[in-house]
Amino acid sequence: MPPAYSFLKSQRQNELWRLLKSVRSTSVELSKPLSDADATAQSMPDASPAKWHLAHTTWFFETMVLEPHVPTYRVFKQEFSYLFNSYYDSIGDRHPRPMRGLLTRPSLQDVHAYRNHVDTALNLMLEENISADVLDLIELGCNHEQQHQELLLTDILHLFAQNPLRPAYRRTHSLVRHVERATHTEFQSFEGGLVEMGFDGEGFAFDSERPRHRVHTEPFQLAKRLITNGEWVDFMHDGGYENPTFWLANGWAAKQVAGWNAPLYWEQPDSERWTMTLNGLQRLELDAPVAHVSFYEADAYARWAGARLPTEAEWEHAAHDLPVHGNLAEKLRWRPRAAPESSSPAPQQMYGDVWEWTASPFVAYPRFQPTKGAAAEYNGKFMSGQFVLRGGSCVTPSQHIRRTYRNFFAPDARWQFSGVRLARNS
Amino acid sequence: MPPAYSFLKSQRQNELWRLLKSVRSTSVELSKPLSDADATAQSMPDASPAKWHLAHTTWFFETMVLEPHVPTYRVFKQEFSYLFNSYYDSIGDRHPRPMRGLLTRPSLQDVHAYRNHVDTALNLMLEENISADVLDLIELGCNHEQQHQELLLTDILHLFAQNPLRPAYRRTHSLVRHVERATHTEFQSFEGGLVEMGFDGEGFAFDSERPRHRVHTEPFQLAKRLITNGEWVDFMHDGGYENPTFWLANGWAAKQVAGWNAPLYWEQPDSERWTMTLNGLQRLELDAPVAHVSFYEADAYARWAGARLPTEAEWEHAAHDLPVHGNLAEKLRWRPRAAPESSSPAPQQMYGDVWEWTASPFVAYPRFQPTKGAAAEYNGKFMSGQFVLRGGSCVTPSQHIRRTYRNFFAPDARWQFSGVRLARNS
Amino acid sequence: MPPAYSFLKSQRQNELWRLLKSVRSTSVELSKPLSDADATAQSMPDASPAKWHLAHTTWFFETMVLEPHVPTYRVFKQEFSYLFNSYYDSIGDRHPRPMRGLLTRPSLQDVHAYRNHVDTALNLMLEENISADVLDLIELGCNHEQQHQELLLTDILHLFAQNPLRPAYRRTHSLVRHVERATHTEFQSFEGGLVEMGFDGEGFAFDSERPRHRVHTEPFQLAKRLITNGEWVDFMHDGGYENPTFWLANGWAAKQVAGWNAPLYWEQPDSERWTMTLNGLQRLELDAPVAHVSFYEADAYARWAGARLPTEAEWEHAAHDLPVHGNLAEKLRWRPRAAPESSSPAPQQMYGDVWEWTASPFVAYPRFQPTKGAAAEYNGKFMSGQFVLRGGSCVTPSQHIRRTYRNFFAPDARWQFSGVRLARNS
Amino acid sequence: MPPAYSFLKSQRQNELWRLLKSVRSTSVELSKPLSDADATAQSMPDASPAKWHLAHTTWFFETMVLEPHVPTYRVFKQEFSYLFNSYYDSIGDRHPRPMRGLLTRPSLQDVHAYRNHVDTALNLMLEENISADVLDLIELGCNHEQQHQELLLTDILHLFAQNPLRPAYRRTHSLVRHVERATHTEFQSFEGGLVEMGFDGEGFAFDSERPRHRVHTEPFQLAKRLITNGEWVDFMHDGGYENPTFWLANGWAAKQVAGWNAPLYWEQPDSERWTMTLNGLQRLELDAPVAHVSFYEADAYARWAGARLPTEAEWEHAAHDLPVHGNLAEKLRWRPRAAPESSSPAPQQMYGDVWEWTASPFVAYPRFQPTKGAAAEYNGKFMSGQFVLRGGSCVTPSQHIRRTYRNFFAPDARWQFSGVRLARNS
Repeated sequence: MPPAYSFLKSQRQNELWRLLKSVRSTSVELSKPLSDADATAQSMPDASPAKWHLAHTTWFFETMVLEPHVPTYRVFKQEFSYLFNSYYDSIGDRHPRPMRGLLTRPSLQDVHAYRNHVDTALNLMLEENISADVLDLIELGCNHEQQHQELLLTDILHLFAQNPLRPAYRRTHSLVRHVERATHTEFQSFEGGLVEMGFDGEGFAFDSERPRHRVHTEPFQLAKRLITNGEWVDFMHDGGYENPTFWLANGWAAKQVAGWNAPLYWEQPDSERWTMTLNGLQRLELDAPVAHVSFYEADAYARWAGARLPTEAEWEHAAHDLPVHGNLAEKLRWRPRAAPESSSPAPQQMYGDVWEWTASPFVAYPRFQPTKGAAAEYNGKFMSGQFVLRGGSCVTPSQHIRRTYRNFFAPDARWQFSGVRLARNS
Repeated sequence: MPPAYSFLKSQRQNELWRLLKSVRSTSVELSKPLSDADATAQSMPDASPAKWHLAHTTWFFETMVLEPHVPTYRVFKQEFSYLFNSYYDSIGDRHPRPMRGLLTRPSLQDVHAYRNHVDTALNLMLEENISADVLDLIELGCNHEQQHQELLLTDILHLFAQNPLRPAYRRTHSLVRHVERATHTEFQSFEGGLVEMGFDGEGFAFDSERPRHRVHTEPFQLAKRLITNGEWVDFMHDGGYENPTFWLANGWAAKQVAGWNAPLYWEQPDSERWTMTLNGLQRLELDAPVAHVSFYEADAYARWAGARLPTEAEWEHAAHDLPVHGNLAEKLRWRPRAAPESSSPAPQQMYGDVWEWTASPFVAYPRFQPTKGAAAEYNGKFMSGQFVLRGGSCVTPSQHIRRTYRNFFAPDARWQFSGVRLARNS
Repeated sequence: MPPAYSFLKSQRQNELWRLLKSVRSTSVELSKPLSDADATAQSMPDASPAKWHLAHTTWFFETMVLEPHVPTYRVFKQEFSYLFNSYYDSIGDRHPRPMRGLLTRPSLQDVHAYRNHVDTALNLMLEENISADVLDLIELGCNHEQQHQELLLTDILHLFAQNPLRPAYRRTHSLVRHVERATHTEFQSFEGGLVEMGFDGEGFAFDSERPRHRVHTEPFQLAKRLITNGEWVDFMHDGGYENPTFWLANGWAAKQVAGWNAPLYWEQPDSERWTMTLNGLQRLELDAPVAHVSFYEADAYARWAGARLPTEAEWEHAAHDLPVHGNLAEKLRWRPRAAPESSSPAPQQMYGDVWEWTASPFVAYPRFQPTKGAAAEYNGKFMSGQFVLRGGSCVTPSQHIRRTYRNFFAPDARWQFSGVRLARNS
Repeated sequence: MPPAYSFLKSQRQNELWRLLKSVRSTSVELSKPLSDADATAQSMPDASPAKWHLAHTTWFFETMVLEPHVPTYRVFKQEFSYLFNSYYDSIGDRHPRPMRGLLTRPSLQDVHAYRNHVDTALNLMLEENISADVLDLIELGCNHEQQHQELLLTDILHLFAQNPLRPAYRRTHSLVRHVERATHTEFQSFEGGLVEMGFDGEGFAFDSERPRHRVHTEPFQLAKRLITNGEWVDFMHDGGYENPTFWLANGWAAKQVAGWNAPLYWEQPDSERWTMTLNGLQRLELDAPVAHVSFYEADAYARWAGARLPTEAEWEHAAHDLPVHGNLAEKLRWRPRAAPESSSPAPQQMYGDVWEWTASPFVAYPRFQPTKGAAAEYNGKFMSGQFVLRGGSCVTPSQHIRRTYRNFFAPDARWQFSGVRLARNS
C-alpha cells in the first residue's frame, strides 16, 4: 500500500479495512480447533459445516463485491458459486442445503486457500479509493461474516453434542455471567407511551432494523435478570413439560413430536444434571442463565410463571440507556465475566449472555425497504414463521451487538444460545 | 314456556334464545344436501367431517353450558366427550384429529338425535332465568357454531373437490359480488396516526378482539376493491409462480413441495379455466374476486404488483365507517349480490365476499386476557404461526361478521374463501 | 331363462351361472349390516371401502367380460372405469388408492344399481351359449369377487377397530375352531423327497398356482394344530416382543416403528385381555388360534419355540389327503365349528380357520405363465416382497379354499386372519 | 515370531495368519486416497463412512476374537464398542446407523491407531498355537473385512457422486471386462434335474451357503454374457422406464418415487452420456456390462427382453466347471482385463465383473444352522426382503469370490456394482 495514496482514503474506508482484517482473521482463528472432518460434517439441515461457513462468507465477498466491482478479478473456482450460495435465488442455482455435509472436497485447506485468494483481492481493492456503495457492501460482508462466526460455534456445538464421545471445542472459562440466585425475579417498571424504535444512527445496521418509527406501548415491567437454569429445574419439577395449558398449540405439538423434556443439551446420566457445552460435557450451573430453549418453551415458562415474554418494542425501549458490550472477545480470548449486581436499578444481562426470545413475530417495520441488489434477499424473505430475539449471546462477536439488532429464528429452534427474560403488564 | 315467567326474563336472554334457535336450525339446514357418507368423510387433517361439526358444536353446549350448570342434565352418550372434543386439553383426552373421518358411527341420524337431546335441554334451561355468566357461554356457543357452519361448507367443498365426479353441494347463485373490471386498482388514502383498534362495544366479541387499544399507524392507502380472478391470471402469465423473488422463503418452499401453480380448485381440463365451487365445477369468472389463495400467494401477488398487504390495524381503521353486512342469508337463501360501485369513494367488498389476508401475524393484543374457564383455550393457544384475515367471506353467517373480527389461518392454508386486497404506503 | 335353450348350454356354463348368482348375491348379503358411511370409509391405504369392493368386482365383470364380448353392452357410467380400477395399468389411469375413502359419491345405493345393471347384462349373456374363453373370464371374475368378499370383511373389521365405539359388524358365533389346549404341540412326520406341488386338476386355479412341478424336500415335521392365543400369551410373557434375537432384522425394525407388543386388535383395558372381532370387542379366548399376527411375529414366535415356519411345499405336501372344507357358509350362516380331535393322526385346522404364514416368499413357480390379456397383471406383478400364506381363514368363502391356493401378503401385514403353524426338521 | 515355535503351529494357522496380514494391510491401502473428511462422511443410511468400515472390522476382531479368548487383552477404548457395533443385538446397544457420518472423532489417524493396537494383539496371539474354534473366528473376521473392503469402495463412490466436483477416488484402468457387442445374446442350455447346491468343500464359507442340498431344476438356458450399457440404452429408448407392464408392482412404485430413468450414476450433461466411477466422471462405455441397477430394473429389463433372471440354483449349476477368479488384485493393482471370447462354449464374465441379480429371494437353505455365538446374527436375520446376487464384482477381493457365495441386497439397492445376466426356459 503506497503511503502516497493512503491519506486520500476516507476515514470510513480505513476503519472498514481494519474491521475486514479483524473479521476475516477471527474466522480463521475460530476454525483452528477443528479437523478437516470436524469442519465438514453437518449435524442437521438447520446447521452448516464449519468449512461451509468459512467458504460461504468468502463467496459473499467474491460475488457481491469483487465480481461486480473489480473487472480484473478472477474467480477462484467456478463451481464454488454453486456450492457456497446459501439462499440467493437471484444469483442462481445452489447446492441443496441438507447435503452440505457431503462436501468432503474442497478440503479445509482448499477453503483456506480460497479465503486467501479473496482476501488478497479485497486488500488490493482497498488500497484504492472506492465508492460508498462498495464500502456499504464490504461492511455488509463483515457483518454477514460475524453472523456466521456465531453460527459456526452453535453448529459445532450441535455436531459435537451428537458424538457419544462429547468432544470439547475448546477448553475455556464459562461464557455467561451468573446471577446471584434470588427467591424471586425483580422487575423494573416503564411508562411506555408513544416511543421510537429502529435504527437511524451512524454506523451499520441491517435493513430489517430500519426505518426508525413510532409505536405505542402500554406501561410494562421488565425483569432485571435472565431466568436461570435453577429456575428452569423448578419449572420441570412443577410439570412444565407435561401440562398443555402452559403451551401454545403449535408448541405442544412440537414438544410431543420431538420429545422435549428439558432444554437442549441437558443430560442426566446419573443423579446429577450435566449439559453439553463448547467446553465439553459440564455440570449444570444452576445460577447461569438457561440457554438452548425454544420460543415455545420460553413462552410456556412465562405463562407458568404468571408473566409473559416482552415485545421487541418493550425490550428496545428498556435497553435505552444501557451500555452495549459483547462477549466474544476478539480472537476468542474468552474471559470470566463479572456477575451482575442484583441490586442494580437497571436490567442486567441485556447484552452478550443469551439471545432473549421476544413475543414479536419477525415482520417488516412500517415502510421497510430491502437493501438494493442481490442483498435484497438478506432479511426480507424470512419475514414469516419466525420470532425476534434480542440482546446477543456469549458467542456473538462484541462489535456485532447493538440495541436495535433483530435476530430471528423459528419458534422450535433450540440450538442457538437462546434464553428467557420475563415481562408483565404494569 | 309458561307466560307467567316469560316477562321476568331479561331482554338479552330472549334475544339470545332467538339467536340460539336460529343458529341451531341453520346448522341442520346446512346438512340437508348431505348423505350420511358425505357427512362422515374427512378430506384432510385440517378439515373435519360435516357430522363432526354438527356433533362438536353440540358437545360444546353440552360440556360448557349444560353439564356445569344444569344439575339434572343427563349426558347423551358418555363416549361423545372423547369423540367430539376438538382441542380442549383441560377437558380431557380426545379422538385424534386425523382420524375423524373413520367415525362411521355414530350415524348422521344419531348425531341429529344428539342435537335434539341437547336442544331440548337448552330450551328447558332458557325457560328459567339464568345468570349472565351462563348467558355469556350460550352466546359463545352460538358464535362458535357459526364458525363451524362456515367450516362445514369449506370442508365439504374440499371433500367434493377430491371426488372425480365433482359433485355439487347445492345449486344456487354465485356467492360473491363481482366488480366491473378496471384497468387499474384505485386506492383510498388514510392519514393514520395514533388510532384505536379492537372491540369495546355492546354485544359479542371473542377474547382475541379485546381490549381496545391504541396503535400508531403511518399514512397509507388501501385498494378500493379486491383482486379479481382476471388479475390473478395476469400474475400467472407473468411468471408469478416461477419467480422466487416475489415470494417469502417459507412460501416458496411450500409452493415447491405442494406444486402450486394456480389458486386451489382451479382446473384447466381444456382450453378454458374452470373452478370447483359449492355449485360444482364452474367456468372461472374473471371479474369475481380471487379466492382460495394462501397467505404466501397473496403476499407474492402484492409484491409482484408493487404493493403490499394491509396490516390488520390499517384494515380496521379503513373499515371505520362502512356498514357491516354479511352474505350467508339465514337458512341459506343465497341471493345474487349487487355489484359494488366502482366510483365509490370508500373501499368496496370489505365484508362478506372473501376473507382478506393481512400482513399481521395473529398475536395477542396488549393486555389480552383469555376467556375464563375451559374456553380459555379458544383463541389464545393459536397465537403462533398464523396470519390474521379480515372481513368475512360469502359463506360466513351474516350476523357473525364484524369490523374487529380476527380470523386466522396458517400461511399455507388455501381451502378457505381467502383473497387479496392491496395496500401501499402514502 | 327359456328352457328351450337351456339344454343346449354346456354343463360348465350352467354350473358357472349358478356360481355367479351365488357369488354376486353373497356380496350383497355381506353389505347388509353396513350403512352408506360404513361402506365409504377407508381405514388405511392397504384397506378399501366396502362400497369400493362391491363396485370394483362389478367393474371387473364389466371391463373384462361385458365390454370386450357383448357388443350391445352399454357401460353404466363412464367415470367408474377410473374410479374402480384397482391396479390394471394396461387398462388405463386410476383413482389413487389412498383416496378411495373420499368417494362419498356414488352412494352405496348407486353402487347397488351398478351391480344390478351388470348382473342383468351378465344373465342375458349367459342365456346364450358362450365360448370357453369367456367362461374362463367369468370364472375368474367369480373367484376375484370371492377374494374381495374376504377383504371386505377384514377391511370392515379394521375400520370398526379404529372407532372408539368398537361397533360390531354382526352378532354371530365364534368363527374359528378351538383346540383343546395341550401342554405341548404334537408334530406329524413326513418323509419328503421329490414331491409334486401346484395345480393341474379340473376346475379353477389362479395362474400363480401353476404349473404343477417337482420340488425336493428334506424330511420334516408339521404341527398337528395351530398356535393358540394362550400360547401367544406365553410368548409375550417370556419377552417375545422385547428380545431382538428372535426376530428378523426387518421384523424388529417394523416392530419398533409400529410399537407392536401383541397381535393386532388385542386390548387390555383392565386386568383382562380383549380382542376386537366382527362381533365387536370380545374376551380373548385362550384356546382359539391366534390371528392377526404378521409374518415377522409368526417367524419370531417359531424361533422362540425352537421351531420354524413350514415352506409352502411342505404345507401342500402335508395337506395331501385332507378334505378341503371352508368356513364362510353361503349367505353367512356362520356356525360354531366342531373342535378338532387332539388325538388325530393327521394335522388339524388346515383349512378355514386362519391363514398360515409359510417361510416361502411369493415367487413364480418354474415355467409360470401369466393369464393372457389384462388379467395378466392379476398375480405376477406382486411377486416381490410378499410371503405365501396357506389354508384359508374363517372368512374365506368355502368354495374358494383349495390345497394349492397361494395367498400372499407383505410380511408386516396384520389385518388379515393370519396365524401360525410350526414345522421342524425331522 | 520365534522360529522355535513356528513349526508347531498348524498349516491352517500359518495360512490364516498370512491371510490376516494381507487383508488388514489391504484395508489400509484402500484408505490411502482418502482425507479424514472423505473417510468421515456418510452419503445415505445404507452406506457407511470409510473410517467406520476400518474401525468396525477392527472392532469385530477385538470383540469376537481378542476379548473372549485373550485374557490379557486390554480394550483400546471402551466407547468404541458402542460406536462400531454394526447390528449385533446380543452384544449390546449401538450408535444409530444413520448418524455414523457425524463421528468426526475419532479421527482417521485415531482409527489407524486402533487398527495397530488390535493387529499387534492378533499377531501376538497367533504366535502361540490356538484352537480351531478361534481360528474359525479369525477366518470369519478376515472374510468379514473383505466384505467391508468392497463396501468401502461402493460407499466412497456413492459419496463422491453426491459431490458436484465429482472427485475421483483413484485414477486407474477400467475395472470391468468389456464384451464384443453382438447383435443378440447367445444362451447355453442346461439339462437341470435333481442337482446339488451349497457349500461343502474345504475352506471358508458363510453359514448361509450351507448345507449342500438337492434342488430340482427344470431345463434352462443361461446367457453367455452380461447385459451391456449399450443394450440398456436400447431398453431406455424403447420406453423401458415408462411402461409399467415390464415392472413388478413394488418396482414400479420404487421407480416412481425415486424418479429412476437410467442406472445410478448415469448423467447426460450434454449430448453424450457419462457415468460416475471410482475414476471420476467418465464417458459411458457401451460394451461394458451395465452396473448399478436395482433388482427391479434388472427384472424389468429381463421381461422387456422376453427372458427372465436366473434362479440362484441355475446360476450355481451353470457355474460348475468355470474357474473362479476375482478382479480386485491384492493391494489394488488394478489391471485391464482381457475381453471374454464371444465364441466361448461356456458362460463368460461369471466372476468379478458385476454382481448378477438372481430371481431368488434370500432365504435359508433347508436345515440351515446359523454360526454359533454372536456371529449367529451374521446372515440369518437378514433373510427377508432381499434378493440373492451371484458372482462377485470388479471391487470384490479376488480371494473372496466363490461359486456358492450368496450376496444379498434389497431389491431397490443400486449403489453396488450390480448387473444383469438373462436366463430362459429351455
